[in-house]
Amino acid sequence: MRVLGVDPGTLVVGYGCLEVADAHAARRGGARIANLVDLGAGGMRVVEAGVLRLGGKRLDLAERLRSLADQMGALLDRLVPQELALEQAFLGKSVHAALRIGEARGVVLAEAGRRGIRVHHFAPARVKRAVAGHGTADKDAVAEMARRLLALDRQPSPRDVSDALAVAITRVEALRWERATGGCIASERDV
Amino acid sequence: MRVLGVDPGTLVVGYGCLEVADAHAARRGGARIANLVDLGAGGMRVVEAGVLRLGGKRLDLAERLRSLADQMGALLDRLVPQELALEQAFLGKSVHAALRIGEARGVVLAEAGRRGIRVHHFAPARVKRAVAGHGTADKDAVAEMARRLLALDRQPSPRDVSDALAVAITRVEALRWERATGGCIASERDV
Repeated sequence: MRVLGVDPGTLVVGYGCLEVADAHAARRGGARIANLVDLGAGGMRVVEAGVLRLGGKRLDLAERLRSLADQMGALLDRLVPQELALEQAFLGKSVHAALRIGEARGVVLAEAGRRGIRVHHFAPARVKRAVAGHGTADKDAVAEMARRLLALDRQPSPRDVSDALAVAITRVEALRWERATGGCIASERDV
Repeated sequence: MRVLGVDPGTLVVGYGCLEVADAHAARRGGARIANLVDLGAGGMRVVEAGVLRLGGKRLDLAERLRSLADQMGALLDRLVPQELALEQAFLGKSVHAALRIGEARGVVLAEAGRRGIRVHHFAPARVKRAVAGHGTADKDAVAEMARRLLALDRQPSPRDVSDALAVAITRVEALRWERATGGCIASERDV
């Protein structure tokens, strides 16, 4: 199964697609969710990760968002993920920043909705906990742990990519937990 | 020429499409922008106004935004506006509210961008000033003035519709000003 993590920004959108081992393999590993490094070994692999560039500030907002819709649609059609994972709203940002990020999120969500892809939202602290072991880990620690969990030679870069991979890892962890516990929903649903 | 005003919300999106008289007629009225009631008489008429309903809270966020994309796309294809007018970010809302409204805005903007429709953004105080004569007018005063300016029998309802018509009126006023002054840009561009 494939899970696409997305980190929507106003100029660049990071993404990271993970393939998860089948349910049987997941069940075997399911009891060891505390030791996430183990998952990297056999549980999941990076299918593709990168950034979508929205054309820079020289473009109108509407043109950038149109570009995002086109690129995200093409990405979803190419990678065919069953699930999409996003970070929930963060506190501590300005209203203006939230509006801008919301615009990019909305476009991503609409493209996912168009294809019937399930969307899961995770609080930032939850992502940090899942990847780096505690909810106050800094971005560097998250990037380094994402590298180890996914058995990559180098840290995913830029930060938009490691953030997208981190939220995808969080969904994979939740999925293993659901499978191990018989389907209790461990992700949060946005309203 | 047609201008579509849009008021994006999380469950309902208001819209109001105005047809503006041609450039010649606009030029004649252009010098009298202070007296907006005059525009209503001969300058613009309502082509269509209403709300798009996004399916209620029982639907996933992604499904609601997908529904918005589909309905907004169909609306733009049917009404064929040359321009779209939106209110800019408002202060005084929460980060969470801004994120949610941003999501709907993003979908609307991407659909406009897909069709090459020019988008104009206006600050809330500017909309109030254009429609009701001063930047601190309340929503009732805006709705009542929109009714008069557009020579409607009743106030546009619900509020989402009168807000959408108000921002369309603001764009028409700016357009008349541009025409009268030879093209100086009177709308604000979002970055």
